[in-house]
Amino acid sequence: MNDLELAHALADAAGEAIRPYFRARFDIETKADASPVTAADRAAEAAMRALIEAHRPGDGVIGEEYGDDRPDAAQVWVLDPVDGTRAFIAGRPLFGTLIALMDLGTPVLGVIDQCIARDRWVGTGEGTTLNGAPARVRSCPDMARAYLATTSPHAFPADDFATFERLRGRARDTLYGGDCHNYGLLASGHLDLVVEAGLKTFDWAALVPVVTGAGGRMTDWTGAPLRLGAEGRVIAAGDPALIEPAVAALGDRP
Amino acid sequence: MNDLELAHALADAAGEAIRPYFRARFDIETKADASPVTAADRAAEAAMRALIEAHRPGDGVIGEEYGDDRPDAAQVWVLDPVDGTRAFIAGRPLFGTLIALMDLGTPVLGVIDQCIARDRWVGTGEGTTLNGAPARVRSCPDMARAYLATTSPHAFPADDFATFERLRGRARDTLYGGDCHNYGLLASGHLDLVVEAGLKTFDWAALVPVVTGAGGRMTDWTGAPLRLGAEGRVIAAGDPALIEPAVAALGDRP
Repeated sequence: MNDLELAHALADAAGEAIRPYFRARFDIETKADASPVTAADRAAEAAMRALIEAHRPGDGVIGEEYGDDRPDAAQVWVLDPVDGTRAFIAGRPLFGTLIALMDLGTPVLGVIDQCIARDRWVGTGEGTTLNGAPARVRSCPDMARAYLATTSPHAFPADDFATFERLRGRARDTLYGGDCHNYGLLASGHLDLVVEAGLKTFDWAALVPVVTGAGGRMTDWTGAPLRLGAEGRVIAAGDPALIEPAVAALGDRP
Repeated sequence: MNDLELAHALADAAGEAIRPYFRARFDIETKADASPVTAADRAAEAAMRALIEAHRPGDGVIGEEYGDDRPDAAQVWVLDPVDGTRAFIAGRPLFGTLIALMDLGTPVLGVIDQCIARDRWVGTGEGTTLNGAPARVRSCPDMARAYLATTSPHAFPADDFATFERLRGRARDTLYGGDCHNYGLLASGHLDLVVEAGLKTFDWAALVPVVTGAGGRMTDWTGAPLRLGAEGRVIAAGDPALIEPAVAALGDRP
């Protein structure tokens, strides 16, 4: 099993673990750690870790639920079993399982898998696919024509939403909600910009190969490459020509 | 074919008309009236109108795309082929087809159909179903535990978002995006409140039977029943006990 095959196997296993919990009834008085999303998160991460242990015992694993194993290995799998917890809780088929393979700290393979609506984006150095077919960003060099997406106005730390608002005013239209699924839609040429803040490494590592493999670009809000441990302000642009005006809008602090 | 069977046939026909346009590539320099969402809207409404004309030639039809036919008939079908235009354009499987049957001005049958992820809520005086299985709201009498949803902070006219913000501060959590799909998720007991403003009749008419058939309640922001031609500020509550605190929060203007 090569890395790409293993990545598909991980996404398959996560989907199987998650689906029984999707739209399960629960008492909203239940404590958060007994909620279906927590159960789905744990079951999916455990299933993926078991496969990695079986097929790549020397690789590292960084997961949202079960912490770090061998994080200094040359190859490290970064797992976020359920990105978009709010969407999952609400029964919305737009959460996603994120799987990244880091090679000496650089993400070289990324998967965004939506296991209910069955959208699987896979990005590698060879390109990006959606359910096996090539995915490609669209041309949109002009900010005034760009369709922008972000998950929530309240997901921005501190003053970052005010900063985002300046960018929003220059784009054509803005779509809310969507979590990681937005980056897949950008890779397929249906959105032009996704801008967020406060992302952790396991939130963005898988997105980079998907976006760049499709011809897009991801940077932080200064236009620099995303780095492990950085503050998690991200820009994803379908057309790389949008990075510069996006950075200008976001950098133009009052 | 009874009214319920006709409603299903309309939703089937709309889905068949819409699916070929979903995630179709388009040049974003294209004029709006040549975009895939406009084509999908028109094709779906034309297909539904043809069925109504064939099976209920005396009924009225009010549609977003092709206007009013016999709007004063005792039975009137209210059609919104693609609710959630932004979601459709972005390739997000959360837009919906809305179909309402009005009997002397009161919606007695409603359909919310998501033809990609295949979620179909149908509400009648007999109850509400999701894909044929009974759908039921959940209990949540306490605003502090309520999960709230709304499509976009920018969909509120004038000062209504500031008003909404007061409500948001009292709820447990808020999810953005979703359009009509949120009301289906509320009917199935996954969300507790959906609050929006600026909805037109064809945006809300189909939602009422779905929500009330599942045990929930829909009112305007004063707690009064929704009326044709009113200003389109809506509250949908899964637990009817949430209407009063929601109205209090929204009515408590600064």
